[in-house]
Amino acid sequence: MARKALESQPFSRLLGARLSAFGDGAATLEIDIREDLHQQNGYVHGGVLSYAADNALTFAAGSVLGPAILTGGLSIQYVRPAAGRTLLARAEVVRAGRRQAVVRCDVLTVADDGTEALCAVAQGTVLPIHTS
Amino acid sequence: MARKALESQPFSRLLGARLSAFGDGAATLEIDIREDLHQQNGYVHGGVLSYAADNALTFAAGSVLGPAILTGGLSIQYVRPAAGRTLLARAEVVRAGRRQAVVRCDVLTVADDGTEALCAVAQGTVLPIHTS
Amino acid sequence: MARKALESQPFSRLLGARLSAFGDGAATLEIDIREDLHQQNGYVHGGVLSYAADNALTFAAGSVLGPAILTGGLSIQYVRPAAGRTLLARAEVVRAGRRQAVVRCDVLTVADDGTEALCAVAQGTVLPIHTS
Amino acid sequence: MARKALESQPFSRLLGARLSAFGDGAATLEIDIREDLHQQNGYVHGGVLSYAADNALTFAAGSVLGPAILTGGLSIQYVRPAAGRTLLARAEVVRAGRRQAVVRCDVLTVADDGTEALCAVAQGTVLPIHTS
Repeated sequence: MARKALESQPFSRLLGARLSAFGDGAATLEIDIREDLHQQNGYVHGGVLSYAADNALTFAAGSVLGPAILTGGLSIQYVRPAAGRTLLARAEVVRAGRRQAVVRCDVLTVADDGTEALCAVAQGTVLPIHTS
Repeated sequence: MARKALESQPFSRLLGARLSAFGDGAATLEIDIREDLHQQNGYVHGGVLSYAADNALTFAAGSVLGPAILTGGLSIQYVRPAAGRTLLARAEVVRAGRRQAVVRCDVLTVADDGTEALCAVAQGTVLPIHTS
Repeated sequence: MARKALESQPFSRLLGARLSAFGDGAATLEIDIREDLHQQNGYVHGGVLSYAADNALTFAAGSVLGPAILTGGLSIQYVRPAAGRTLLARAEVVRAGRRQAVVRCDVLTVADDGTEALCAVAQGTVLPIHTS
Repeated sequence: MARKALESQPFSRLLGARLSAFGDGAATLEIDIREDLHQQNGYVHGGVLSYAADNALTFAAGSVLGPAILTGGLSIQYVRPAAGRTLLARAEVVRAGRRQAVVRCDVLTVADDGTEALCAVAQGTVLPIHTS
């Protein structure tokens, strides 16, 4: 169901994002790095990293809160230029209360030889939409 | 020169971003809203808003610090679902010191009738790359 | 009533904070700068600035949402060492929705001659406590 | 030396902060919880938590970068009301580059029986002051 939710996002299809893990307050989003995701120096654009963090932390929260949620916002710090074969955003819920879930996320790249490099760290909030 | 820098970013071309204002510590980025920038409910994906904020605040800083810069990170809070004809990210440098520039950014949509609606607020940092 | 709320915070009394403006989605908090609010170089400690931003943005949100609120969090960027006679935190609600208010805040110092200097910018979220 | 730096901060003395761990990119700050650190409901004021996060992440960065540093800013999300005997802020450097260190911090309380409860999560940046 989470995979179907991701596929129903046209922007996620445009970027080629897929969910490789989902459940128990965690989610991992993967994107194959290709040339049209780059900035001017051949690295993945920061906007792709912030998209990946935003979406991964929303799905991680959704695994606890269900699909009726809104992303409140996030903070992201870039720590290294992103290059490699695949971009991963690994998010994990820190705490899900009644009014918001707080989620942390690591964004990293995987090289052809499997080496991982941390590129950005993020934390954000996701709000349940109360329908009662 | 700033427009050329934007055009040299493949990801910005993929999203159709253009610079409509640049200079004196400010920059405005515009994106025509189209279906493949949406999330699952027909609104612009949060990742597009964070991309626009990230890039607008980097260009605003670049108008003061020059092109040798790195985006340090940003915080973005979403305040309203984004729908309309055009997405605007208006960034303005709060202060540019020797070690970092701090920049604020408003992300808003413009409807067909010209009505603007604020969708997100952001603040971020941009670091000069000292080459001396 | 807002002043009474501030006075009922022992930590705000310890720091000598007072509300000099409150209402219509805005609030200003003032603190007389004294030596025991300093860090090691004679400037106001960053923790005092983040306290002032946190509390000012919470009161600004409270002027719209009422007293049953929780501060969700904030981002603060320091832009200049803080020195002077008085510290001011001026907060203004960007948008108050049903699930959260988003608030921006400027933290500045006032010198003996009345000159203001911006020391930090912040943005944060405040959540209403639904009691229904 | 780090302990001496902390003791030379009048505001840290006012709050009764002490360094219980320091080195290798990590630092832990402790504060005995007392009534004058409270907000109006008997919990530790959010401003104390943001002070603790700010200072712990600065010391963690200082253990790698040395004492000539400036705190750039931080984001903090509150996840639970803070009550107990002691407040702990545990910070760890995510990455220290030439232009900034990115640091994460957990803020938690310890009850009389030793139980820990996470109260806030933060991430921030610290900038080296280049003297060359």
